[in-house]
Amino acid sequence: MIDYSERIARLQQKMREKQTGGFLVAQNVDIYYLCGSMQTGYLFVPVEGDPVFYVRRSVVRAEEEAQVEVEPIGSFRSWGERLKARFPQVFGGGQQKQPVVATEYDVLPVQQFQRLQTMLPGVQWADGSAMIRETRMIKSAYELDRIRAAARLIDEALEHALGLLRPGMAEFELMSEIEYYIRRRGHLGLMRMRGYNQETITGMVGGGAAAAMPTYFDGPAGGQGLSPASPQSAGRRKFERDEPILLDIGCCIDGYVIDQTRTAVIGELPGDLAEAYAVSEQIIRSTEQLLKPGTISEHLYFNSLDLAEKAGLALHFMGYANDQVKFLGHGIGLEIDELPVLAKGFTYPLQPGMVIAVEPKFTFPQRGVVGIENSYAITPDGFEKLSVSREGVLRV
Amino acid sequence: MIDYSERIARLQQKMREKQTGGFLVAQNVDIYYLCGSMQTGYLFVPVEGDPVFYVRRSVVRAEEEAQVEVEPIGSFRSWGERLKARFPQVFGGGQQKQPVVATEYDVLPVQQFQRLQTMLPGVQWADGSAMIRETRMIKSAYELDRIRAAARLIDEALEHALGLLRPGMAEFELMSEIEYYIRRRGHLGLMRMRGYNQETITGMVGGGAAAAMPTYFDGPAGGQGLSPASPQSAGRRKFERDEPILLDIGCCIDGYVIDQTRTAVIGELPGDLAEAYAVSEQIIRSTEQLLKPGTISEHLYFNSLDLAEKAGLALHFMGYANDQVKFLGHGIGLEIDELPVLAKGFTYPLQPGMVIAVEPKFTFPQRGVVGIENSYAITPDGFEKLSVSREGVLRV
Repeated sequence: MIDYSERIARLQQKMREKQTGGFLVAQNVDIYYLCGSMQTGYLFVPVEGDPVFYVRRSVVRAEEEAQVEVEPIGSFRSWGERLKARFPQVFGGGQQKQPVVATEYDVLPVQQFQRLQTMLPGVQWADGSAMIRETRMIKSAYELDRIRAAARLIDEALEHALGLLRPGMAEFELMSEIEYYIRRRGHLGLMRMRGYNQETITGMVGGGAAAAMPTYFDGPAGGQGLSPASPQSAGRRKFERDEPILLDIGCCIDGYVIDQTRTAVIGELPGDLAEAYAVSEQIIRSTEQLLKPGTISEHLYFNSLDLAEKAGLALHFMGYANDQVKFLGHGIGLEIDELPVLAKGFTYPLQPGMVIAVEPKFTFPQRGVVGIENSYAITPDGFEKLSVSREGVLRV
Repeated sequence: MIDYSERIARLQQKMREKQTGGFLVAQNVDIYYLCGSMQTGYLFVPVEGDPVFYVRRSVVRAEEEAQVEVEPIGSFRSWGERLKARFPQVFGGGQQKQPVVATEYDVLPVQQFQRLQTMLPGVQWADGSAMIRETRMIKSAYELDRIRAAARLIDEALEHALGLLRPGMAEFELMSEIEYYIRRRGHLGLMRMRGYNQETITGMVGGGAAAAMPTYFDGPAGGQGLSPASPQSAGRRKFERDEPILLDIGCCIDGYVIDQTRTAVIGELPGDLAEAYAVSEQIIRSTEQLLKPGTISEHLYFNSLDLAEKAGLALHFMGYANDQVKFLGHGIGLEIDELPVLAKGFTYPLQPGMVIAVEPKFTFPQRGVVGIENSYAITPDGFEKLSVSREGVLRV
């Protein structure tokens, strides 16, 4: 069902462009993407030829799961010699220039990298983070199908949550109902993020002032959280009438995440917040016009900044003042923070198979956050909206 | 309530012993431990004097949470100069030898480390992983109190789960009930692990053959999981009568985790598995005799190996054959994989304030896993058993 050789071939093409002889893939998600198994070990991908998955544990299970050759990694010392012998096209003889081997500098810990350097002396190491992230940026039919399944489930969960929402209910109580609903229907129980020190549990639900609290989380709405030991997402504050309630929730089906936001209210939103919400929908409609192959990803952000500015809401856009984040959205897939990022400096032209979450939001300190977030796949003609939930301010 | 200056002082003592001038603490959990805030940034701890938390986001929130001085990190380029100016005792004048600055090589990604190296040229970098992990190894009264609270909650959740357990129920259904129960009562929704590529959701529940499936997870019982994209923990298999059902579950209260295992059965365990379970209790009783200040941590592992061997169960102990893990237990605290590890090569003498999970288990391929896991605090006189759940094979 999943064509791993096509994934490997796309990575190898990027390796050729970057004169990289081999890629020692070290991160669990990257390994899973390239071979179908997430057991502990390293996947070595030569620029030409087939990869080998060197497994520490569990070898038996890797042999069942992986669509590439599996070999026990054995002792770390002898592994270097076996690797060289197995891939002469990379490590060559004495007459060749220094072999270039990439690994993921964006996630690999220093200690582990130093062990690899010791194991393979004479290698010129290179940062392969961009290569692997760009390979993963383009989704296959299978991947789109899994993200669609996650989108359907989170829509069901949203309607379930709206049916339970009432004044006096605490944020974390509503979040626990959402989590219970999705977990019983296949949510893996985690949503992975690549960014260092970043964590997402199941997104956040936040009402009024709590939703508007800034936090470390690399997103426009932080939330109070249950403790300084997890200072984001749902907290103990109770929902009140006539305040915006942000439901920025996701789930993970077979490894693939969805990210979606809706704004709800028990009663009626204050007029200026309802207007700000309407601007968030205007921004998402304007963004949709640009969702087609060729649009430069950062342009979507610039366009949204213009619209927020024209609406007089620049100071509130994507967080408030000093706590603003400088993007409109991000890729999603096996991780919640994939490429392309819709932010200044990200000049990827949109391509069919990219999947992005677009999340225009406005923060009003002490009052709350309003906004919307949909996930989209780029198609040859434009886009497919993956999020299936109804829009508008959801009144309960 | 929490004495951060005492924590800082203990780290500084270790820094003096290692001739380390400064510690640039980079990991979210380590930062939280040392200053009470988990916002994004770096905590700089000089070997003498007060630390400063350089914060990227959210500065406002860090100022509320942190018990140390907070300064916006500003531009990365100018930060290096400001750091040097602020800590002359570390970075000194031209006449001094090269300043030594530590950071956590075990978790810091290479890319981020390289940025730090560029920002602070002329510094001799050192791996501070052991220093910070050893500082965190000794728990305060507050930390013990939080772990006790987590232990009480997981005991309630266990009894709740036993009340629901029935043949035909899928593992993940029972797990979702446990998660729902603890989440509504303050579980943060995550359990942190320090090990690279290691993930724990809420532990695992597994019946029969599924519990005995090996996996990458660095523990004695893996489980099938819901997908190769998360190949561990509870899966879709349905519980049956007369098979061992392993409930290895935890929760996280105010950042602190508990880890506990019980063995249940619907009906009656086969005789040999019941005997193996009895050996796991013998091992935990024998371990308790040794839980007192001065015992060398690896000795607890060697002792358990002896007892498993004498019972004729060596091949089944802590996983089966090639998939065995080589430890008896591990420290717990803000992370589930803390020091000391009860394994060969870990020669820490037990000290008051250490908290360890002791988990003798026996794996029978195709049949299941039996065993027990309790968490203990070391006291001046011996130990306090933190796990409050009833023992024995739990028949439902």
